[in-house]
Amino acid sequence: MDFKEELKKYQNIVEKELEKYIRKDACPERILNESVEYSLMAGGKRLRPILVLATYSLFKKDIEKCMPFAMAVEMVHNFSLIHDDLPGIDNDDFRHGKLTNHKKFNEATAILAGDSLLNQAYIVISETLLNAENKYDLELKIKAFNEFSLAIDRLIAGEYVDTEFEGKDVSLEYLEYNYNNKTGALIKLCVRLGAILASAQNEDLEKLTKYAEKIGLAFQIKDDILSVEGDELITGKPVGNDEAKGKCTYISKYGLEEAKRTLKELIDESVSIAESYGENAEFLKQLALYIMNRNK
Amino acid sequence: MDFKEELKKYQNIVEKELEKYIRKDACPERILNESVEYSLMAGGKRLRPILVLATYSLFKKDIEKCMPFAMAVEMVHNFSLIHDDLPGIDNDDFRHGKLTNHKKFNEATAILAGDSLLNQAYIVISETLLNAENKYDLELKIKAFNEFSLAIDRLIAGEYVDTEFEGKDVSLEYLEYNYNNKTGALIKLCVRLGAILASAQNEDLEKLTKYAEKIGLAFQIKDDILSVEGDELITGKPVGNDEAKGKCTYISKYGLEEAKRTLKELIDESVSIAESYGENAEFLKQLALYIMNRNK
Repeated sequence: MDFKEELKKYQNIVEKELEKYIRKDACPERILNESVEYSLMAGGKRLRPILVLATYSLFKKDIEKCMPFAMAVEMVHNFSLIHDDLPGIDNDDFRHGKLTNHKKFNEATAILAGDSLLNQAYIVISETLLNAENKYDLELKIKAFNEFSLAIDRLIAGEYVDTEFEGKDVSLEYLEYNYNNKTGALIKLCVRLGAILASAQNEDLEKLTKYAEKIGLAFQIKDDILSVEGDELITGKPVGNDEAKGKCTYISKYGLEEAKRTLKELIDESVSIAESYGENAEFLKQLALYIMNRNK
Repeated sequence: MDFKEELKKYQNIVEKELEKYIRKDACPERILNESVEYSLMAGGKRLRPILVLATYSLFKKDIEKCMPFAMAVEMVHNFSLIHDDLPGIDNDDFRHGKLTNHKKFNEATAILAGDSLLNQAYIVISETLLNAENKYDLELKIKAFNEFSLAIDRLIAGEYVDTEFEGKDVSLEYLEYNYNNKTGALIKLCVRLGAILASAQNEDLEKLTKYAEKIGLAFQIKDDILSVEGDELITGKPVGNDEAKGKCTYISKYGLEEAKRTLKELIDESVSIAESYGENAEFLKQLALYIMNRNK
């Protein structure tokens, strides 16, 4: 399997599907919709919806069945980015080299575009419930909806903790709480959604949850590393940004070398979980390696 | 029926039920939860959840069945108030004589408390779906969930239009669009939720939707009137606030007298719909009159 090719294939599927949710009506809130589109279609890596699709694919081939939840996850991810960037929170002017939503539009529009995206995720979920094929399908989707709402709660709590503790030297316990919620909750959700919707056995659900927890933490640690030694032209974020903001990170706690060691350990463990699924999970295995080796 | 007594009874039911959703854990996001509690328990009139309960009561007596949706509506209402008040939107320091959320806490906390409340509404809905009693009950709740998510979409769009057109002399068409969405969508939702969850016939659903549309618009016009001639000590809002902000309102379009005439007409019509339900709808009838006669 050529991972990059496979990733691109998945990304194209996600982009094409997201397009369907973009509103082009000539309505009074047209600019709000443009603001939503600006952020949603800014072309991130789409790792979260891809995780839903790839996990679902371990068990079943009809990935369109989990597509609404994959879309909902990407909407919520973008909601959280728009609100994180706001002047009242991180006050960032750029994301991936593009103006942040409130800089491109204005603060009011960005707040409401974020709100709108969060809510749109639930519109999508409500519609997929309305369209359930049978009782069993509906049960899986309701379980997925519940897990979804609880994970977003953790995402918001994690963002809050991040904000409150900025510039403070927090305990390791709090730092991990933050990582587990802010980044971890959504990544774990993605993998669990894929497994739940494919009616995976409990044993598989638990194993894959471990995989997700490990790549989630690895993802965050890699972000910390990129903030120290990434290439600004590639990451689109100023090097030393975290340090300048006095952010307590895995690196400020443990140092760069220990962070790299932990990152490798987490990825080794997640690769080994993926390998237990054989050929089928080659993409999930490569995805874990990609999280470690990415340069943005 | 003593309306004030009945209203108080309903308000007590709502307050007591909302209490159950307040989080008191000693978790790292404790202050976020306090901020949510601060706004949610600030003791508004609770008209929206009461509308759900009172409409449901037209058909059935077991109002606890529609309680989760009533709570979800009040959570979303408070989410919208917190975000509306933000410096980036209306920049209000006080609401009902109390400091607004971002003044009491800070901007980041207020943004995230709003996000959290919006999302908590969906947690509550997902849980009531998980607990559905049978297939038919579940179908009603899924329909209610879908209507809920679509109405919140309108609420956010209305708030956006309100923001974009502040200080501009907009067309009557846009003003009505704004009123129908910003205030109207949620009030209409409340009545429809009550009727849908009580499995009302389509004919009743349509009739009650008309009632809701009329009191929704009346509510907004009454707000405009109170902004011109209300008692600041009672309303908690500075008199002339709308005018000072250059807000285009029903009054700036039509004048005070015409606004009062339309208000009375709308209330007369909604009272007559309520009367068609006889004794049972006495509360809904009185509620319409209350919307016209309230002084805050």
